Amino acid sequence: MQGTILSIGNELLIGKTINTNLSIIAKTLYAMGIEVNQALCVKDDVHSIHQALSQIDDAFIIITGGLGPTPDDLTKEAVCAFYGLELTLHQKSLKRIKDTFKTMHKTMDNSNLKQAYFPKSAIVLNNDNGTAPGAIFQVGHQTIVLLPGPPTELMPMLEPVKTYLLEHLDFEVFHGGYLVVGIGESEMEHQLEGFYNAHKDVLIAPYAGLGEIQYIFTSKDEMALKNALKAFHKRFRDVIVGPYDTPLEHIVVQALQAQNKTISFAESCTGGLLAGRLINVPGVSHVFNESYVLYSDNAKIKRLGVHQSIIDQFGAVSNQCVYELSYQLAQRTGADISVSVSGIAGPDGGTKDKPVGTVFFGITHEGRTKTMHHIFVGDRQMIRQKAVAFALNLVIKTLT
Amino acid sequence: MQGTILSIGNELLIGKTINTNLSIIAKTLYAMGIEVNQALCVKDDVHSIHQALSQIDDAFIIITGGLGPTPDDLTKEAVCAFYGLELTLHQKSLKRIKDTFKTMHKTMDNSNLKQAYFPKSAIVLNNDNGTAPGAIFQVGHQTIVLLPGPPTELMPMLEPVKTYLLEHLDFEVFHGGYLVVGIGESEMEHQLEGFYNAHKDVLIAPYAGLGEIQYIFTSKDEMALKNALKAFHKRFRDVIVGPYDTPLEHIVVQALQAQNKTISFAESCTGGLLAGRLINVPGVSHVFNESYVLYSDNAKIKRLGVHQSIIDQFGAVSNQCVYELSYQLAQRTGADISVSVSGIAGPDGGTKDKPVGTVFFGITHEGRTKTMHHIFVGDRQMIRQKAVAFALNLVIKTLT
Repeated sequence: MQGTILSIGNELLIGKTINTNLSIIAKTLYAMGIEVNQALCVKDDVHSIHQALSQIDDAFIIITGGLGPTPDDLTKEAVCAFYGLELTLHQKSLKRIKDTFKTMHKTMDNSNLKQAYFPKSAIVLNNDNGTAPGAIFQVGHQTIVLLPGPPTELMPMLEPVKTYLLEHLDFEVFHGGYLVVGIGESEMEHQLEGFYNAHKDVLIAPYAGLGEIQYIFTSKDEMALKNALKAFHKRFRDVIVGPYDTPLEHIVVQALQAQNKTISFAESCTGGLLAGRLINVPGVSHVFNESYVLYSDNAKIKRLGVHQSIIDQFGAVSNQCVYELSYQLAQRTGADISVSVSGIAGPDGGTKDKPVGTVFFGITHEGRTKTMHHIFVGDRQMIRQKAVAFALNLVIKTLT
Repeated sequence: MQGTILSIGNELLIGKTINTNLSIIAKTLYAMGIEVNQALCVKDDVHSIHQALSQIDDAFIIITGGLGPTPDDLTKEAVCAFYGLELTLHQKSLKRIKDTFKTMHKTMDNSNLKQAYFPKSAIVLNNDNGTAPGAIFQVGHQTIVLLPGPPTELMPMLEPVKTYLLEHLDFEVFHGGYLVVGIGESEMEHQLEGFYNAHKDVLIAPYAGLGEIQYIFTSKDEMALKNALKAFHKRFRDVIVGPYDTPLEHIVVQALQAQNKTISFAESCTGGLLAGRLINVPGVSHVFNESYVLYSDNAKIKRLGVHQSIIDQFGAVSNQCVYELSYQLAQRTGADISVSVSGIAGPDGGTKDKPVGTVFFGITHEGRTKTMHHIFVGDRQMIRQKAVAFALNLVIKTLT
């Protein structure tokens, strides 16, 4: 089955909004074995929408944006006019929209009324985070899906779309995968050269982030999928940290909770991003109390007692310095695991021995302190984000 | 002048890559007064590329992606075949590609050879961050621009494209604008209702981030632009923090540097993101030494001497607590400005008096401590990011 994703909105064409919906929808469809043939993005006027629709012959079209209450929001009206479908009032949606306003202690504006109109044959999709319902309907050989533009509204509404598609697809699709950390994408691809051919019935796609890669496996053959996952796990167990759909920081917090341990950080170049990412996880307070950002040499000396002589002799970006930082951090905070990070994020400050991207890590656990370093490639922000992923991976490795 | 942006690459259609290039290019063109009519995204095969090109009649086409050395990279070949243009070796580019490999202590692979081939009439665009040059050429009434897919390579190459377009446009375009913080987009839009009509010769577009909005003004009439900018500044001086193209954290660091002052943070719910964002700025070490992430009550008590009675009586999310945190932080670090943040980022922990999104801020400057609070809307991550923008704005207001 082939599909087109049609995004509607001037804001996308003046660069005001990044079209994250496209990648979210495309990834969802891909995992279901549906091929997205093309993606179009047009302005919110009737002519542009009709012209786009006249060019699409795919069996499946997802249309996003333009379902709001303003006069600019005319997607549903334009699409239904194109296919010659009449819009009628959908009472249940009207009640839901009115209820949404009641919850906000407001009364519904007349402009919202049009949001409750749909073709008679449509399956209406509830929107729990806004007033714009979505819809699924058939026109000839084509399945049309309408979804609102805001990602927070759209994302939960993909679930009923998935359910509908799974019911109407003539095949079942299975998927799984792993989150891989501590190895570059090109190195992984190199190592995977024979692997893809050995598992031809399985689609394997790497989604690379900064310092981490999701490998998503999809197949219509459940046995083939299981075998591929097993073989991948066997071969890459050293760099697999968890299932592909669990964020790295969640894996860290889960591992800490399972062992009833606490963690603390002393950050220099990452400057708070490591703590900031761990605190993404709700309920992190069970495993995290406090953390330090010690950017200047003086702060490292004053707060965690790094000796001036270490800074003088080896520099703040050194095994010796991160050793002292994580060791003293453990003493001071009593955290079960303490991690220190000190590096050169650039753009300046690199030397021949320690080029930009060089980052040292210290980790203290059960009385033992280890240090290591890695050279990351990228700009200042990329280096810092990759160092955060590296540090989180270090914690996982230490705990397991 | 109207244009189309055509993005080429399977990775975009399986959701592996978010098409940030689209918004970067669209924003650039918009600021030049060029209207992007539509954006297309197709797979990297010749048929898909030809079909897309046959649908585009705009005077200006920017094509991104597929300029690499692998067999999948066939954009240039497909585009030139479509327009009947012959590819010939561009010696200067070949030399540059060879030199790039030399710098990396590698020898050029034969697969890279095709990257040095271009139509004879093309203006070749150097790529300082990769081996794929870009190109601009004319075919009939259409101007075609080829750019590589990786954003770090593409972005600097937009500069010569801009220069070319400015030389070939039959009009001049002026632009400017402001970064606005401390007011919501809907409130701004409400206040701007009459403003747009009073400045009809100026395009004004808000680009909303989390807790901050860029207002970009574009006009072919220099005088009209100046007047609109002046009027906007007069009306919104309280919420304008700087020019639209200077990031908020840079404005903060500049203000601190100008007054030769240092800053420190005590973060609870933002958990390091505030320090992490300030440290985005290279050279921040002149104004920033250290910072604390004090997430648990106990850490607030132990590290900065908040009294247990304050926590018991008012809670950690209170005026009293952030007052103590910023006051004690100033004492302890000697920073000229100290800022504390404590709030409820959710999803749990909200109460009737302090719903999820409630964040308290303390700021100590020249011996005086002020506190305030704000209720932010959004999910856990949005609330935390908005609180970071709010805190940075607080620093700017305090310094100026």
